[in-house]
Amino acid sequence: MEARFEAVRAAVGAALDGSLAALPDGDLTDAMRYATLGGKRVRAFLVMEGARLNGVPDHAALPVAAAVEALHAYSLVHDDLPSMDDDDLRRGMPTCHVQWSEATAILAGDALQALAFGLLADPAIGPPEARIRLLAAFADAVGAQGMVWGQALDIAAETAVEVPDLAAVKRMQQAKTGALIGFAATAGPMIAGADTAPLAEYARNLGLAFQIADDLLDATGDEETTGKRTRKDEAAGKATFVSLLGVDGARAKAHLLIDRAIAALAPYGSEADDLIALARFVIERDA
Amino acid sequence: MEARFEAVRAAVGAALDGSLAALPDGDLTDAMRYATLGGKRVRAFLVMEGARLNGVPDHAALPVAAAVEALHAYSLVHDDLPSMDDDDLRRGMPTCHVQWSEATAILAGDALQALAFGLLADPAIGPPEARIRLLAAFADAVGAQGMVWGQALDIAAETAVEVPDLAAVKRMQQAKTGALIGFAATAGPMIAGADTAPLAEYARNLGLAFQIADDLLDATGDEETTGKRTRKDEAAGKATFVSLLGVDGARAKAHLLIDRAIAALAPYGSEADDLIALARFVIERDA
Repeated sequence: MEARFEAVRAAVGAALDGSLAALPDGDLTDAMRYATLGGKRVRAFLVMEGARLNGVPDHAALPVAAAVEALHAYSLVHDDLPSMDDDDLRRGMPTCHVQWSEATAILAGDALQALAFGLLADPAIGPPEARIRLLAAFADAVGAQGMVWGQALDIAAETAVEVPDLAAVKRMQQAKTGALIGFAATAGPMIAGADTAPLAEYARNLGLAFQIADDLLDATGDEETTGKRTRKDEAAGKATFVSLLGVDGARAKAHLLIDRAIAALAPYGSEADDLIALARFVIERDA
Repeated sequence: MEARFEAVRAAVGAALDGSLAALPDGDLTDAMRYATLGGKRVRAFLVMEGARLNGVPDHAALPVAAAVEALHAYSLVHDDLPSMDDDDLRRGMPTCHVQWSEATAILAGDALQALAFGLLADPAIGPPEARIRLLAAFADAVGAQGMVWGQALDIAAETAVEVPDLAAVKRMQQAKTGALIGFAATAGPMIAGADTAPLAEYARNLGLAFQIADDLLDATGDEETTGKRTRKDEAAGKATFVSLLGVDGARAKAHLLIDRAIAALAPYGSEADDLIALARFVIERDA
């Protein structure tokens, strides 16, 4: 998997750089570039592999992978804002509003969202019908019934009187991180007009496992390795998979979900080995 | 014009309500709805008239008109934020972050942007190629070379050592408000695959005149009539068309621009009477 992952990282980084190079010089574009640097590019990898498994060539999937990473970058910039999660460290660097300003961070996030949607118009992706299918699914994954809704639920939970239960945390996370992961994994079959069900099932389980791993890293990791502040959830008294299941219970649940994710890949046989490896990586990573 | 304007207002309001009704209940959707209430719907009217002049039926143009108004609503919500223009009054009501919270206002703006892009996937608009043309143009009008860039320039000007000259203010405003107005006016010919030049020229002049009228309202209007705070520009020492040209000079400039906007409509003959009336309204309005 590592070679393919590295190739995807390089290609998506270059695609994002190319899009940003076409924009006017200034703080806004610089802040957008800053926000898109680094990161594991898990979502881009999902796009590229989901595409490959459905006969969609890399050059067609690449603008979609770049769109998903631009969108993910916007969401991190806005989530880190003082009025949201108020984070000062991300990927081992000062967060966007610390490095620039709150206004620039809000605008950079806004512009990254527009950039992401605009990338879906790229003719390289495929016929217009395919791009429109992506547009509709992307808007649903991002907006007020997807990622943004999940973030709103997350913020609401922090001030709620009742502590959310496992079902509520799961629902919130499936919106907050699961919707975009689901879009990424199914973009390939959507372009090809193929069945999205196996990759949707894979992504649903992978997304939750990914979030549990994040909660575990917050509870047990260190800031130097993760590149972000840790012990935030406990300090905030936040309901997470770890607070609700304990460290061991959360770990067991993540492993179960990864087993299910891998089982969903059965229709693709050994062609899906890299997605299997990604699933294992998701819960074994230390950052 | 008034009957058509009223019909457009009602239809766009209903289209937005319909989109919002499909979203989960909660503060996020409520804040989105709140942000889309009221307003003159000038941009929606531009979409509908530009469409009609190019043989595009109302039902095809309506999702685009709703998209433009949703996008405009997002931009107002984010522009009003404490770290941006820090406004507490809009359309005679508390601004979104005052009514809800800063976090909810940021998320409502984010979700309105996603909603706006998603509306362009509506099959009612026309064939997929037409929708993809709109998608590409919309992303350019909104993002880091359009509206968001203009807002970044506007904010940068406030802290700049050098006072911006007329050319700089014009460039900023053409991005900040002109880009979306230009998209709205040309969406019709884009759907039809027709020439966008006459309506682009109309919109370029209309957009600047609209902004000059806004500057004049800030300098000479009152809060009760305009529904928003006035005398903000002068208090902030901001370079505007009024500060650079004086009240009389700005008024004369606006009239010149409106004459040019109207001249650009010549190819459409008397069919464009409502757009001519809109141009006159733009500089005669008191709110």
